[in-house]
Amino acid sequence: MDYRDAFRSALEKVRSEGRYRVFADLKRHRGEFPRATWTRDDGTSADVVVWCSNDYLGQGQNPLVLDAMHQAIEEAGAGSGGTRNISGTTHYHVELERELADLHGKEAALLFTSGYVSNEASLSTLYKILPGLIVFSDALNHNSMISGIRAGAREQRKVFRHNDLEHLEELLAAAPADVPKLVAFESVYSMDGDIADLPAMVALAKKYGAMTYLDEVHAVGMYGPRGAGVAERDGVMDQIDIIEGTLGKAFGVMGGYIAADAVIVDAIRSWADGFIFTTSLPPALAAGAVASIRYLKEHDEIRAAHQERSASLKARLIKAGLPVMPSVCHIVPVLVGDAVHCKMISDILLEEHGIYVQPINYPTVPRGTERLRFTPSPAHTDEMMDRLVEALETLWVHCNIERVGGVAA
Amino acid sequence: MDYRDAFRSALEKVRSEGRYRVFADLKRHRGEFPRATWTRDDGTSADVVVWCSNDYLGQGQNPLVLDAMHQAIEEAGAGSGGTRNISGTTHYHVELERELADLHGKEAALLFTSGYVSNEASLSTLYKILPGLIVFSDALNHNSMISGIRAGAREQRKVFRHNDLEHLEELLAAAPADVPKLVAFESVYSMDGDIADLPAMVALAKKYGAMTYLDEVHAVGMYGPRGAGVAERDGVMDQIDIIEGTLGKAFGVMGGYIAADAVIVDAIRSWADGFIFTTSLPPALAAGAVASIRYLKEHDEIRAAHQERSASLKARLIKAGLPVMPSVCHIVPVLVGDAVHCKMISDILLEEHGIYVQPINYPTVPRGTERLRFTPSPAHTDEMMDRLVEALETLWVHCNIERVGGVAA
Ligand SMILES: Cc1ncc(COP(=O)(O)O)c(C=O)c1O
Ligand SMILES: Cc1ncc(COP(=O)(O)O)c(C=O)c1O
Repeated sequence: MDYRDAFRSALEKVRSEGRYRVFADLKRHRGEFPRATWTRDDGTSADVVVWCSNDYLGQGQNPLVLDAMHQAIEEAGAGSGGTRNISGTTHYHVELERELADLHGKEAALLFTSGYVSNEASLSTLYKILPGLIVFSDALNHNSMISGIRAGAREQRKVFRHNDLEHLEELLAAAPADVPKLVAFESVYSMDGDIADLPAMVALAKKYGAMTYLDEVHAVGMYGPRGAGVAERDGVMDQIDIIEGTLGKAFGVMGGYIAADAVIVDAIRSWADGFIFTTSLPPALAAGAVASIRYLKEHDEIRAAHQERSASLKARLIKAGLPVMPSVCHIVPVLVGDAVHCKMISDILLEEHGIYVQPINYPTVPRGTERLRFTPSPAHTDEMMDRLVEALETLWVHCNIERVGGVAA
Repeated sequence: MDYRDAFRSALEKVRSEGRYRVFADLKRHRGEFPRATWTRDDGTSADVVVWCSNDYLGQGQNPLVLDAMHQAIEEAGAGSGGTRNISGTTHYHVELERELADLHGKEAALLFTSGYVSNEASLSTLYKILPGLIVFSDALNHNSMISGIRAGAREQRKVFRHNDLEHLEELLAAAPADVPKLVAFESVYSMDGDIADLPAMVALAKKYGAMTYLDEVHAVGMYGPRGAGVAERDGVMDQIDIIEGTLGKAFGVMGGYIAADAVIVDAIRSWADGFIFTTSLPPALAAGAVASIRYLKEHDEIRAAHQERSASLKARLIKAGLPVMPSVCHIVPVLVGDAVHCKMISDILLEEHGIYVQPINYPTVPRGTERLRFTPSPAHTDEMMDRLVEALETLWVHCNIERVGGVAA
């Protein structure tokens, strides 16, 4: 049997759907964020401005974060050398978990190697701990949550239409009263830039005796007076049972976590395979994350600057008649509506304008809603924005894409 | 419904099985490996020698590795700021994947955030790429492989008795000839220290037209003239279809990978959710791993020293009449055979002798085979070994455990 054919046709399928990915090889320069050097396949390179980083606040360049990492490397070395249980728990991990619990006002927190793993491992483990559990999952939840929820039997997973409280209530009401229930959702949905109505979600979950699991991956560091996320901003943090977040986006490092009551955290710690059977984060990452969280707790002005930059870019795009999608957060999606155009615009921006933004195509977003997704940070200047808008205007003409008068449907 | 009760009873179950884990809070000291400071719950601390690190060769302390990390932090900052596709592919990632492909003599390699994720994501994705695939899995395969293999339907997973070629052949022969097949196994099994017969496995797989997937997590860096693992040592590296490894053990950093034909790697890259939807490794980890791999490629004498230290510890333990289990590799397991004793010995070693080794209890190993698992590195001195053996002798008397004359059943 020639297995190569199967691999080839798997690739053919990806190509034919226009979603074959070629990774841009970038080298960022410390202190010059969002600038980077892009290296082409042929080895030549060019300077670019990165417009699609999830290092939303530039914390990956914050000297305090880098110093903490340098120091931890000097003190403790490179890797942790073990799983959390077998020699891989260092002082840095303990300190970071305390810091995260404090950030979210919870009794405890638990570190994972990534946000992906924290969602997958925690959600799949809840099925083991709560026999009969039904998870009610928002239709646009991230792949990592879906992956965890898939561990349940078919009848233990109910998908409600995105942010649709009526549909959620229908499903909750239809489920048996005496089985454990969990509503799993995100605060900021990163592809559209919309935000769930957290107080209403919490109230509805409580009405039906369901626990709540909130992914704040695209909100931690960026919302709430101390950067604990949208639940902090909206005053419902203490009412969410399990808050999940990442250290790899606004905090600028890498890793994931949950924060919750001590008994919940301890049970997941004891039962989650994806937590137990893997080398723990390097001490330097834990140290960098602690420094980043502490810094953002006390620097609300960065969040203000971030929101201002995002509002400013949206205003400029709207003024130019470009189809900004109706985001209510820091993310600025611009509708293209066609996979080939989307990729082409992104290629030309990179090659001719030194602007790097990835096309967002199916299956990340539905067909017909292909888009460019800009993430302006406090370090993106007015001048960078002007050049971006100019380039887009040229291309919109060039590609002959319909202008829909500012905001797309 | 009071969910706390469910979490409490999940914890009760763990406690009643004697497998509630209390993580030792350690702080290693750069340049003094394997020494570390252990902090007790009450905040007091003590110096200890770490005897259970999977930083097998002390590469987590190699100045070349640390320098590479420092430099990458200075050049590129803390985190990568994105998924591999969306701004998270840096020059360091590209270079590391090339280095890994070269190490294993394969056309390509693919980085994951951990060895756990590399196994889980790759194996689960192979079911998507090869419709009808049956995976033949060694009974002692690691949790991460099992987690990936569970993505297949029940009839698509066959478990063969540990290292039992006859049983594997029986299962292969019983499967339909025309479905895709994959044999998934490890080289070094890290709890017992035995090694699979790779040439025989490869021959058998070929006979039945099956692909091979080999986890070399506990072998990379340590076996073969360039540290590519047991398959390199045994001359069958080119005959294994997919080799999986970690950057978090002998290479001393963190991360996981597969190496294979370009078409296989490209298909998994394009289809594996656990690869696609997560922030990529920080540039500093990639840079540290490149330095570590390159160093170990050229320093076979470290592998010789490692094997010598391991042989020396085994000889000392045997001479003292302690029940060393029959490991054929660098891992030195000593049988205790009882969960409570095992935990007690480990606690006394830590508190009274400054020796840190975790008890290995059920479910990591079968009940009745509870053990201490020592991992001597090139940095463990004769004196440290003498003190360890002395301490164990005292405790074996103290705990009144039967001496079984050197090697346990
Ligand atoms: C909503 C959401 N949750 C979780 C993750 C995974 O987090 P991480 O990148 O830390 O793995 C992501 C993106 O990567 C995400 O967008
Ligand atoms: C055989 C085996 N495979 C995979 C892994 C996972 O590797 P990592 O620690 O890099 O996640 C481990 C241990 O952690 C292991 O023992």
